[in-house]
Amino acid sequence: MENKLTVGIDIGGTNTVFGIVDNNGNITFRGEVRTAEYLDVEEFVKTISTKIKHFLSNDQRKNLVGVGIGAPNGNFFTGNIEFAPNLPWKDIVPLAEMFRKELDVPVTITNDANAAAIGEKIFGGAKEMNDFVVLTLGTGLGSGIYVNGKIMYGADGNAGEYGHITFVPGGRLCGCGRRGCLETYVSATGIKRNVLQILADTNEKSMLRNKSIEDLSAKDIASFADKGDVLSIKVFQYTGEMLGKAIADIFSIFSPEAVFLFGGLANAGDLIIEPARMAAIQNALEIHKNHIKILVSELNGSDAAILGASALAFQ
Amino acid sequence: MENKLTVGIDIGGTNTVFGIVDNNGNITFRGEVRTAEYLDVEEFVKTISTKIKHFLSNDQRKNLVGVGIGAPNGNFFTGNIEFAPNLPWKDIVPLAEMFRKELDVPVTITNDANAAAIGEKIFGGAKEMNDFVVLTLGTGLGSGIYVNGKIMYGADGNAGEYGHITFVPGGRLCGCGRRGCLETYVSATGIKRNVLQILADTNEKSMLRNKSIEDLSAKDIASFADKGDVLSIKVFQYTGEMLGKAIADIFSIFSPEAVFLFGGLANAGDLIIEPARMAAIQNALEIHKNHIKILVSELNGSDAAILGASALAFQ
Repeated sequence: MENKLTVGIDIGGTNTVFGIVDNNGNITFRGEVRTAEYLDVEEFVKTISTKIKHFLSNDQRKNLVGVGIGAPNGNFFTGNIEFAPNLPWKDIVPLAEMFRKELDVPVTITNDANAAAIGEKIFGGAKEMNDFVVLTLGTGLGSGIYVNGKIMYGADGNAGEYGHITFVPGGRLCGCGRRGCLETYVSATGIKRNVLQILADTNEKSMLRNKSIEDLSAKDIASFADKGDVLSIKVFQYTGEMLGKAIADIFSIFSPEAVFLFGGLANAGDLIIEPARMAAIQNALEIHKNHIKILVSELNGSDAAILGASALAFQ
Repeated sequence: MENKLTVGIDIGGTNTVFGIVDNNGNITFRGEVRTAEYLDVEEFVKTISTKIKHFLSNDQRKNLVGVGIGAPNGNFFTGNIEFAPNLPWKDIVPLAEMFRKELDVPVTITNDANAAAIGEKIFGGAKEMNDFVVLTLGTGLGSGIYVNGKIMYGADGNAGEYGHITFVPGGRLCGCGRRGCLETYVSATGIKRNVLQILADTNEKSMLRNKSIEDLSAKDIASFADKGDVLSIKVFQYTGEMLGKAIADIFSIFSPEAVFLFGGLANAGDLIIEPARMAAIQNALEIHKNHIKILVSELNGSDAAILGASALAFQ
């Protein structure tokens, strides 16, 4: 069988990764750009398209069957990115149509978290599952939700914004303009706000005080915690507890086989998973206490996102 | 075609209604018992089964093809009622098997709210919808959720406990043993707790002070509000606002075509729907603000529950 090619593009608030994928799931070309540097979305589309066309030989171009895009607030039904609080482009962006014009193949778009969930289902730890939830802990908190073996898109493609449930009424201001959204507590940016809150609460010494909050990453906090920094451990406990409470609610709502954690924060492993598991069990309904299952995504971060997005194009 | 019969049984925290339903959706016999009076579940099953057998002629008995039961915490996959906080029977009750022994036909059980949603899909306002949510506002708050045209059961039949999400962290004690569950604010019992909270907050005169909280019903509060009782209006505004905030989250999660309200509280109409709609729009994500749709169930209360439960048996 002739080798069919797709392009998978994963757009994050910070970086965009993309690749050319064959029908065996091999990534033959990888690229990356910094999303935030492209205030003009036209330029963003042109830059990526040019790189892809440059890589494909004329021969290969005719094997390209489609493009799949995972993007925050990407709408499967309309092909648009709609009111994405964590992207530089406001209102409605017809991204699928823009890429279609450049690359001349069908373009499918979905929420970046849906793309991650499709990746988990096809290439990762959810191969045998029909009901599961993937939480992507990046700049924001995204959710890709499988119900009865299918991604839940909702009536209009906008389902799955679990990061924007009101988790703390009247709580922290969110990029979406509202207050108390889950992602202001549990995400790569949320954990930094947890750092600030915990540092404000005490004068205790901590390695956390030696780096600007701008430069601090979840990886730094994890490495401080590994070195025994008490407040860094506390930051992970607090973040894990918030995550666990959210997961208890996710079990009440979806009763999934498992909740997968994906993205930077998930790499902190037991530092965040253990407090999350404890809080989830403690806060779950009686009927769910015995089968709370929290797993780390089995997919390698950036490849997973590319593969998940490309799987959209193969579907 | 020979007329096939099913039995639909709707078990609520207060009352249980049941009926014999033919394949045209006509209810040929209706019965009712007070759930709370049956501390012994064996007696409950015997009483209802005897009434049904008594009504069916020998001829009709052979046309009975199945029994469908809607019950709080009813599990579609196991046939059990599992840890229902609002029923007199604790732990795990194998109710489907108990009725099967008495009536000698297949028995299917599900969450009472799922039964209401199936009723709405087959006989009510959701006939053309594939993605919608039914909230049942009774003793508790139940949810029946359609995703991609099918009821969402989750991996183990326990999905859809939306009444038990933690709506107010550290809030009111719930029948499930946890704190702050949505149903402690928004349900027939929740609205009475809102009455107490609002009466505690002021010395203002109100008709609400002339009736014991035990005897007070949502219907009473609505009739006081209609007579211009200021605090009664305030109770509905507060309850509606809580409901609307919950519905904003439901749109973030499910992006349904509509949310249907079912049960006693929904009968208060605009008294509760208008503040709910306003709060839902105010608290929704930008992408959802323009299509928040809150509808009152098109089904007549007790018939709907019987029909919804019986539809399970026909399925």
